[in-house]
Amino acid sequence: MLVEGRHYKTVWMEDGKVKMIEQNMLPHKFEIVTYTKVEEVANSIGTMVVRGAGAIGAAAGFGVALAALNASDAGFEKELSKGASLISSTRPTAQNLFYAVERVLKATKDKSPKEARESALKEAQAIADEDSKMCESIGEHGAKLLKDGMKVNTHCNAGWLAFTDWGSALSPVYKAKRQDKDIFVFADETRPRCQGAKLTAWELLNEGVEHAVIADNAAGYFMKRGEIDAVIVGSDRTAANGDVANKIGTYSSAVVAKENGIPFYVAIPLSTLDPKMESGGGIPIEERDEDEVRYATGREGPTLLTPEGSHARNPAFDVTPAEMITGIITPKGVFKPEKIMDALK
Amino acid sequence: MLVEGRHYKTVWMEDGKVKMIEQNMLPHKFEIVTYTKVEEVANSIGTMVVRGAGAIGAAAGFGVALAALNASDAGFEKELSKGASLISSTRPTAQNLFYAVERVLKATKDKSPKEARESALKEAQAIADEDSKMCESIGEHGAKLLKDGMKVNTHCNAGWLAFTDWGSALSPVYKAKRQDKDIFVFADETRPRCQGAKLTAWELLNEGVEHAVIADNAAGYFMKRGEIDAVIVGSDRTAANGDVANKIGTYSSAVVAKENGIPFYVAIPLSTLDPKMESGGGIPIEERDEDEVRYATGREGPTLLTPEGSHARNPAFDVTPAEMITGIITPKGVFKPEKIMDALK
Repeated sequence: MLVEGRHYKTVWMEDGKVKMIEQNMLPHKFEIVTYTKVEEVANSIGTMVVRGAGAIGAAAGFGVALAALNASDAGFEKELSKGASLISSTRPTAQNLFYAVERVLKATKDKSPKEARESALKEAQAIADEDSKMCESIGEHGAKLLKDGMKVNTHCNAGWLAFTDWGSALSPVYKAKRQDKDIFVFADETRPRCQGAKLTAWELLNEGVEHAVIADNAAGYFMKRGEIDAVIVGSDRTAANGDVANKIGTYSSAVVAKENGIPFYVAIPLSTLDPKMESGGGIPIEERDEDEVRYATGREGPTLLTPEGSHARNPAFDVTPAEMITGIITPKGVFKPEKIMDALK
Repeated sequence: MLVEGRHYKTVWMEDGKVKMIEQNMLPHKFEIVTYTKVEEVANSIGTMVVRGAGAIGAAAGFGVALAALNASDAGFEKELSKGASLISSTRPTAQNLFYAVERVLKATKDKSPKEARESALKEAQAIADEDSKMCESIGEHGAKLLKDGMKVNTHCNAGWLAFTDWGSALSPVYKAKRQDKDIFVFADETRPRCQGAKLTAWELLNEGVEHAVIADNAAGYFMKRGEIDAVIVGSDRTAANGDVANKIGTYSSAVVAKENGIPFYVAIPLSTLDPKMESGGGIPIEERDEDEVRYATGREGPTLLTPEGSHARNPAFDVTPAEMITGIITPKGVFKPEKIMDALK
């Protein structure tokens, strides 16, 4: 997608080096970091220079490829395996990470170091390209739901920064824009970490999509006034019955959208669909550090909102029941939530 | 109510001086300011040292009383009238302010300067005392709705800082506590100005009420899990049909409470009830400076969340329809919203 008028991906490989957008600096500073060692890539995943399932997967694949490039002929297998372990240890809950590491390792099996290096590079590139293509497909299917002049509300950041390109929830918006449809986006700021105010707004600004950031409190007001035509959000995990776990606040957004008769869509890559999870009730909800709520962090650093002595509760996700979801947008088409398992057929 | 173990009101008169809590410094610094001139009191209202309908009314009354105290015998009426005009010009939409100014002026009518000074003081004190008493009555009626061990959710700050004492939405909690009921409060932080994180949390901390600050996004999660037994909010303006205008986000909170079968109460002094406003649809909604959303402001000052180039929308209030409200708690008892006009009988 576009940044300051040029096309970028979140992470890519160039001249044997891994490059990525330093997402911790966004939206206040746009910086590309370059890594020549697998240790640097592992560190970048751990410190959230790169974040989001798809982008982490691509970074992990490129990281292992880098390990292969740098490994000596003599100690090839051992050095490669060490690099792969390092990448795997960075984010214990990132499913895409293990998938990418294993895929690149497998591509090097039973090959000479020279051939293995080439295969690793090719496989890592394939992982990144597949992620982009899959997100573009989400956009193609989702854009059919968007008419010229529509106003869309989104929560958190399920844009291209979370993948290698296009994104999930924002991909339909970017595709619609390329089809000359005018789409306006109300971006929920998404407290406590403000991914909407920071990342979604930055993406939209750079893509030239008209938008307004709103307090999470204000979405219902605009829904009731008829100023929002559709809601599109992403998903961290989707149960077999179509229940969806996503960023805290998604549930309330769905309830208020339903009350106002506004279509509520969830856009997902199929990797978030968990066939073993029967319903959303079984999805564990992480409760994060209370200081994320006690403070707000922006360009000037963190600022304490609450009294020193007050505690906060900070659930990171909530579950939106399938019956509140109008449709789930996937690379294979748009499914009724109760039919989402058909997407795996 | 209690601050660091001592009882305070938001504004009071002592030895011919007006004293008030400097609310702009809260929750990070507790400071009492002392004023000897009406000009200082007018300035304090304008710069929000004191805020909230009841507290502004009391400050205005004391301000005019101060003008009477300081006026010379020779130029008494002229100087008093000048002081009253100054107070009236500070906050053009604060209804309680005009009411208080006129009441104190009227008490000085056809009296000698000496008698007028005494009457002004007495009347200003009566206004402040009536506000406290009215809020305490809200608490008495509201506390009957709260059982030992209940968990209450509130939005914004409708506590004693907005009045002279007790508050509206928080008064039932303070009353219940004095009846030895354990009440836990989930305080919505209430972006963009974070009155919940700042003022409500500070009040609760000082009153020794167990509480947790939550992102506005998280209220629905706790409601759905059955962790919230009741919601109590305040109101800036209540229409004759029981529709209620209150801080942005109140509407969404009511929708999600209804979805989860949680009672939703609004606590009001009768001065917010507007018999001429037939329904909430007629209440004008102020849209405030977008920088309140673009930035968050805490102890370390403001910090920019959004990209420099992104705009924000910032509606300050929304309207909650009467059918989503379980009851309106007033100093005269708890009314069904559609019966709220009975409170004026």
